[in-house]
Amino acid sequence: MSNRRLVIGIDAMGGDHAPENELLGAYQALEQLDKRNCSIRFFGQENVIRQSAEKLNIPLERFSIHHADETVTMHDEPSSIVKKKRTSSMYLGIEQVRVKETDAFVSAGNTGAMMATGTVVLGRIKGVSRPTIGTFFPTITGTPTLLTDAGANVDCKARHLLEFAIMGSIYYSEVTGIEKPTVGLLNVGEEPTKGNEAVLETYPLLQESGLNFIGNVEGRDIMTGDVHVVVCDGFTGNIVLKFAESIITVLRGKIGGYAERSTWNKIKVATALPTLRSVLKDMDYQQYGGVPLLGVNGTVIIGHGKSTPVAIKNMLIRAADVAEANISGKIETFLAKRSEH
Amino acid sequence: MSNRRLVIGIDAMGGDHAPENELLGAYQALEQLDKRNCSIRFFGQENVIRQSAEKLNIPLERFSIHHADETVTMHDEPSSIVKKKRTSSMYLGIEQVRVKETDAFVSAGNTGAMMATGTVVLGRIKGVSRPTIGTFFPTITGTPTLLTDAGANVDCKARHLLEFAIMGSIYYSEVTGIEKPTVGLLNVGEEPTKGNEAVLETYPLLQESGLNFIGNVEGRDIMTGDVHVVVCDGFTGNIVLKFAESIITVLRGKIGGYAERSTWNKIKVATALPTLRSVLKDMDYQQYGGVPLLGVNGTVIIGHGKSTPVAIKNMLIRAADVAEANISGKIETFLAKRSEH
Repeated sequence: MSNRRLVIGIDAMGGDHAPENELLGAYQALEQLDKRNCSIRFFGQENVIRQSAEKLNIPLERFSIHHADETVTMHDEPSSIVKKKRTSSMYLGIEQVRVKETDAFVSAGNTGAMMATGTVVLGRIKGVSRPTIGTFFPTITGTPTLLTDAGANVDCKARHLLEFAIMGSIYYSEVTGIEKPTVGLLNVGEEPTKGNEAVLETYPLLQESGLNFIGNVEGRDIMTGDVHVVVCDGFTGNIVLKFAESIITVLRGKIGGYAERSTWNKIKVATALPTLRSVLKDMDYQQYGGVPLLGVNGTVIIGHGKSTPVAIKNMLIRAADVAEANISGKIETFLAKRSEH
Repeated sequence: MSNRRLVIGIDAMGGDHAPENELLGAYQALEQLDKRNCSIRFFGQENVIRQSAEKLNIPLERFSIHHADETVTMHDEPSSIVKKKRTSSMYLGIEQVRVKETDAFVSAGNTGAMMATGTVVLGRIKGVSRPTIGTFFPTITGTPTLLTDAGANVDCKARHLLEFAIMGSIYYSEVTGIEKPTVGLLNVGEEPTKGNEAVLETYPLLQESGLNFIGNVEGRDIMTGDVHVVVCDGFTGNIVLKFAESIITVLRGKIGGYAERSTWNKIKVATALPTLRSVLKDMDYQQYGGVPLLGVNGTVIIGHGKSTPVAIKNMLIRAADVAEANISGKIETFLAKRSEH
């Protein structure tokens, strides 16, 4: 990439706690991004942003603001934004990526709207039939696993799963520095003869893909750290992701219930809790920030509606990583080479 | 049911630690089953069973043995048993259920072989196009959730998912005593307009089913205790199940890694561990024993290959529950009433 300063756009009106968490997270990311020669631009209603910043005591001198009249809500139909909300912070943020005024755009707003608007406005990379979102899972070894697709595409054919594998590998490699990440096909058994129609057809495609395909993997392999990129349809991926996200809540509920049973239990839990918290620190999903929409011409990062300031900070840093590494460009190059054969 | 003594058959050659764990588990279940007027019959090589029992100091007077020359292994093709291994403990155990010499059969052996052999030998209940296996998940509230299908059917259409919901509801109700268990359709969002093709078609069928259908549920709802029966295809179900089963291993790995980092950490973990163990006790899958193959004419319970003696014990008790409740008969009655309309 050039040495020009990168601009990372953020939807100030995006998440459930917007614009407060967006402002706090951006403020936390400022020093680190500044050192990397990146600046942050807020998209949203300027007066709301300024009022909120004043209340939170956040100086805005080192940020820029791109005013947007409208806000996309969770109730907006994903496909409607490009037609009906062209002056929203989300639409304008993505549009600015298209015209290369900014280098990336992040939002903790309506996920479906981000995917649909990102795909329509930026367009698909040549050779990509369906953009995908991949999400990182923590593992025993500490090397994260990327699960893709995590919910963008519920009905998938073999060629879509192959594309997810290609995009996921390139993304994983750029973000972790691991050159030839291993790719596993999520399935109900290890044998190539197992699985539903889509995965049965995908297996030979992955064998011939030039990727570091290690065969089928099962649900139990996602968090062992034995495989880097796990490929699945977005229906399965979304359900596994949401199930995984609930584990910490379930554990917390279980521990609370146990503590309530007696004073002695309460003391035991109070003693054990700080240790458990340290152990589980990297199982906390907010550490991973948002997920990129892979396969579109530009860098778009989608965050959880409940994103905390820390999650927002990590999302902005992830955006800088993805933009700097020019992952869209690398996906395009890889696919172009493939189609030559 | 009649007052006649029930006979529960068990594949003595089934699991990874057969016949030891089978003998130990059966011995543990003996008193409880005897009080319920049930006896236990081993299927397997008589000399192997007798030698092993002697070594383990288990008296065999109160058990019966049905000799079987052959053993089904994990490498046997599931569909091949009915043709090639008719003198195996698995085949004979299921055949004895068919001819009503025994009232149930449990095995921790080859799961696919159990499903295929159970379906072919016992036959499907009228109105059932695909038998299903459902599995219990622990929840925050303590009321378990049944996830069905958990791996028997990887490609499913709407009518299969509807059947799973019916069979799962009847099973859940009989086992827990909850009269009208709630049924949720596992999906990527709560809105009826979300999902892949199969679940979109299933939604209206469940609305008209007469079941206590509460709409779509997401991955995060499986362990909250807010829904009793969660319906999904066996591809998704199997992946979620195996993912869930790996959580305890992942936590153990994480805790081990944390302890290794310093002596102080080691002390902290040693203090916290007993509490954590108590808290997580009911997250232990062996508590739930095996899972029934629902939709066949007879009671067949399938256990995990790694089943411990405790899991085997619980599997035998589950078999008595299912046989006593005449769940196959109740499924048949429900489906017959439906087809009258």
